[in-house]
Amino acid sequence: MAVVFLSITPLGTGTPSVSRYVAGVERILRGTSLKHQLTAMGTIIEGDLDEILAVVRRMHEHPFSEGAVRVSTFLKIDDRRDKEHTIAGKLRSVEEKLR
Amino acid sequence: MAVVFLSITPLGTGTPSVSRYVAGVERILRGTSLKHQLTAMGTIIEGDLDEILAVVRRMHEHPFSEGAVRVSTFLKIDDRRDKEHTIAGKLRSVEEKLR
Amino acid sequence: MAVVFLSITPLGTGTPSVSRYVAGVERILRGTSLKHQLTAMGTIIEGDLDEILAVVRRMHEHPFSEGAVRVSTFLKIDDRRDKEHTIAGKLRSVEEKLR
Amino acid sequence: MAVVFLSITPLGTGTPSVSRYVAGVERILRGTSLKHQLTAMGTIIEGDLDEILAVVRRMHEHPFSEGAVRVSTFLKIDDRRDKEHTIAGKLRSVEEKLR
Repeated sequence: MAVVFLSITPLGTGTPSVSRYVAGVERILRGTSLKHQLTAMGTIIEGDLDEILAVVRRMHEHPFSEGAVRVSTFLKIDDRRDKEHTIAGKLRSVEEKLR
Repeated sequence: MAVVFLSITPLGTGTPSVSRYVAGVERILRGTSLKHQLTAMGTIIEGDLDEILAVVRRMHEHPFSEGAVRVSTFLKIDDRRDKEHTIAGKLRSVEEKLR
Repeated sequence: MAVVFLSITPLGTGTPSVSRYVAGVERILRGTSLKHQLTAMGTIIEGDLDEILAVVRRMHEHPFSEGAVRVSTFLKIDDRRDKEHTIAGKLRSVEEKLR
Repeated sequence: MAVVFLSITPLGTGTPSVSRYVAGVERILRGTSLKHQLTAMGTIIEGDLDEILAVVRRMHEHPFSEGAVRVSTFLKIDDRRDKEHTIAGKLRSVEEKLR
């Protein structure tokens, strides 16, 4: 199981607001069964890495279908195989140590 | 006002678990008045960019004080000056378009 | 054509030196026909995005086959479709403006 | 000594070409004594981390002075303190293992 952080941004769209594109990209993710969390700086996704990468590929394509000609996509993969690895588990692990 | 995504990871610590270090780093942030949100992949911070960078510098130093000899820090700054720019505002802007 | 920046790092390996893993990952890339450039902070790859992502997937797997149990992979994709987009072209474009 | 990877991109500039901004940002770096290498995906800088961060702060500001209202800056810091840590040394270390 991998947990990834994903941010997809169109460049040169003529306006500094990109939330329209972000929403379009997010909608694709919501059409899947992958567990995810939208944040102010990107989306966190948990699941099988191959499934995640297949969806990321479709998400990256979306701004082009909305007229963008350049898209900057940032992906950080945290893949751990010696124990269960989930969004909730990672957070819990840090929060326990903060008590 | 800037919104940043920050992730600080020690390398070569002998164990794949880094939540102890993440908690130490997070504690420094909690000692400031900066608005922030801990996520499973990093911390999102909002505020004056110079204030944020000063705290990030101290946070980056922390794993060394806990024995790490190599630290990998990843920082993504989203700095927007034509309108109010906050963690809550950015999220709201996307969520409105998802309705 | 996309240009990507890729960095693959094992966590918790017991030593802060990761060049052995980086070399193993790089060797996979050299076995392909994709144009690329090794830098001190990661590898830059140019080509068809689907081809690149297929190789990145294999590269990400490599440290696990060498004993790592956690791998952190960072990928930044710059995908531009209104003009030719290559490593050499991007560099040239900036350097012309620096003269 | 730290080695960092830096990429600074204005959003919403009306054109997908950002090399003009990249050149302006690079010119600031060239006005310093910091060792650096321009690549197709960002700039690699080596030196004292505090010096680097002070220059990065000025570089991040530059696109605003050229009319941008939103700037996305990505910074990856690799800070290692158990041995000499330089752009050339990191590359050499991987290349030796590739022979």
